[in-house]
Amino acid sequence: KKQYRIAVIPGDGIGKEVMPEGQRVLEAAAKKHGVSLQFDHFDFSSWDYYEKHGQMMPDDWKEKIGKHDAIYFGAVGWPAKIPDHVSLWGSLIKFRREFDQYVNLRPVRLMPGVPSPLANRKPGDIDFWVVRENTEGEYSSVGGRMFPDTDREFVTQQTVMTRIGVDRILKFAFELAQSRPKKHLTSATKSNGISITMPYWDERVEAMAKKFPGVKWDKYHIDILTANFVLHPDWFDVVVGSNLFGDILSDLGPACTGTIGIAPSGNINPEGDFPSVFEPVHGSAPDIAGRGIANPIGMIWSGAMMLEHLGEKEAGKSIVDAIERTLAERTLRTKDLGGNADTTACGKAVAEMV
Amino acid sequence: KKQYRIAVIPGDGIGKEVMPEGQRVLEAAAKKHGVSLQFDHFDFSSWDYYEKHGQMMPDDWKEKIGKHDAIYFGAVGWPAKIPDHVSLWGSLIKFRREFDQYVNLRPVRLMPGVPSPLANRKPGDIDFWVVRENTEGEYSSVGGRMFPDTDREFVTQQTVMTRIGVDRILKFAFELAQSRPKKHLTSATKSNGISITMPYWDERVEAMAKKFPGVKWDKYHIDILTANFVLHPDWFDVVVGSNLFGDILSDLGPACTGTIGIAPSGNINPEGDFPSVFEPVHGSAPDIAGRGIANPIGMIWSGAMMLEHLGEKEAGKSIVDAIERTLAERTLRTKDLGGNADTTACGKAVAEMV
Ligand SMILES: CC(C)[C@H](C(=O)O)[C@@H](O)C(=O)O
Ligand SMILES: CC(C)[C@H](C(=O)O)[C@@H](O)C(=O)O
Repeated sequence: KKQYRIAVIPGDGIGKEVMPEGQRVLEAAAKKHGVSLQFDHFDFSSWDYYEKHGQMMPDDWKEKIGKHDAIYFGAVGWPAKIPDHVSLWGSLIKFRREFDQYVNLRPVRLMPGVPSPLANRKPGDIDFWVVRENTEGEYSSVGGRMFPDTDREFVTQQTVMTRIGVDRILKFAFELAQSRPKKHLTSATKSNGISITMPYWDERVEAMAKKFPGVKWDKYHIDILTANFVLHPDWFDVVVGSNLFGDILSDLGPACTGTIGIAPSGNINPEGDFPSVFEPVHGSAPDIAGRGIANPIGMIWSGAMMLEHLGEKEAGKSIVDAIERTLAERTLRTKDLGGNADTTACGKAVAEMV
Repeated sequence: KKQYRIAVIPGDGIGKEVMPEGQRVLEAAAKKHGVSLQFDHFDFSSWDYYEKHGQMMPDDWKEKIGKHDAIYFGAVGWPAKIPDHVSLWGSLIKFRREFDQYVNLRPVRLMPGVPSPLANRKPGDIDFWVVRENTEGEYSSVGGRMFPDTDREFVTQQTVMTRIGVDRILKFAFELAQSRPKKHLTSATKSNGISITMPYWDERVEAMAKKFPGVKWDKYHIDILTANFVLHPDWFDVVVGSNLFGDILSDLGPACTGTIGIAPSGNINPEGDFPSVFEPVHGSAPDIAGRGIANPIGMIWSGAMMLEHLGEKEAGKSIVDAIERTLAERTLRTKDLGGNADTTACGKAVAEMV
């Protein structure tokens, strides 16, 4: 019987409310598929921890969670209490950089029973992945300000693309495309306007494409690509983009399918040198925290992605199937989707469907 | 009788086909409102010109068109014949920079009779402007490559925001918001991820907001902002963004309203030191060029924006009204909108409605 050690970090706000449901469903799937999961809980990466200790995480956070098979993460951030750059850069973005989680992966899928803002689309029509570079690009730490408070004042920030950084994310994306029936990759660019880094990105895509002759690929400038997410979401299979472009596309995609509140994500270190983080796309949602009404599906779906990443494909799939069946039933959904179940009732419903 | 000198540049592909219809409608509106327009035609900024002369524009292009009251522009670019960075950077982007057209302005409006990809939205629900910084930001010329063809290879490109550049676009956007009934401004940011330039943008927005106490304002990170264009397009009134964010939002917005093929744009120098350029959002469309089926509405609507910019508000409005009435009639629309009129028939129909 395979055993995995999972670091559990509920974090802030509704992260703490949806986490127990995520674990409940993971346990049901593990039981069914003969997998053993050991959950170790950590209270850091949260406002509560910061209030007590003056920092988001203990100094030895890497020793504490660096040997786990994966990190199951709720949500972090509470802008009214702590600035984003302290909470996010002190935890989530630290994980991405220091655990070299260079892939950010999110599904875009039209699910049954989820109200979509797009007209005339049916479940099955839209089903693709956004692969985002997660460590470099536009999110760099290089830049600064000169001549403050004068008319000459200017601020710069560099976008940085390394050969290693670009090639490895493209390789991951092409491999993913190759593993899918459509074998189709779309690259997000803006080489007609951003004239130095983006032509380099295009150049590396072309070079990588040569190694994957079975994959059909195309590219769109980010402006028209966002338009096509709305106009032709059925065109896509695997979409790869830089840190910023991937960030945009992986919020816009779920919005187009109405799933932004329930979408999952993985921050993945494919080599397994470090643990990967799986977290719902939604944040800590201070406005509804503490009321027990948060939708646990994003957390649960992230658990499915985690199992797939660990190699437990069957167990992961059984969770995704259970989510689809739960969503299709009106009463077992939470309020945000027009149902009347609370967080726990929805989590239990999915667990029973597994 | 007021007289304006307009430099007319049809450019490439369908630019040449829609331009005569744009002029036809402008003439009708001018006649009705007692305005006199003098059109001077120029063949540069096109592949034809490049083929003959080896450059996109004559050396004295600034003398030729720099004294006109406005530039009415069709489309430029023909990727199969000439790379974008030659055609676009040799004309359109040159205009923006050298004529200091620091505002790129585009309407996002749900029009009657235009099929929208969004479910359950009616004309009137969506009506806002995207104001884009058009000269600096992410479209900079600063950066380079080091250690080519080795594992150490890296490429950088700086985003550059100047105090002057940021403040003037924000001032334009706040003034526009103040002139509208809702008086609401939304700023596009990404200060939680792009940690140097974007916090500066936020800081300048906050400073500018103090000068416009009558304007309500908010800000969204670009990822969730694109999502909200799809989910809540009725939230917006004036949306302001950097060169890249504005570029994205001003394609996505028209896509959400189904108008990407008919949307207009202005590249504006508000001080009037240089002429402004008015052009449809669509490009030269090599795939349908030469067949007389292109939709002239984007060109015509751009003419309306030009008249408004020149101070001829009534004349501009009469064109927009004529467009709305034409779109509402099924037969006088072009194929792309489900009608069966050709370019000329559609142009004539709008001209008659003026
Ligand atoms: C053609 C391209 C350089 C241009 C831009 O990105 O500015 C276009 O997308 C636009 O919006 O006018
Ligand atoms: C919170 C923020 C820094 C983060 C990002 O931009 O990467 C978020 O939007 C995400 O997509 O995980």
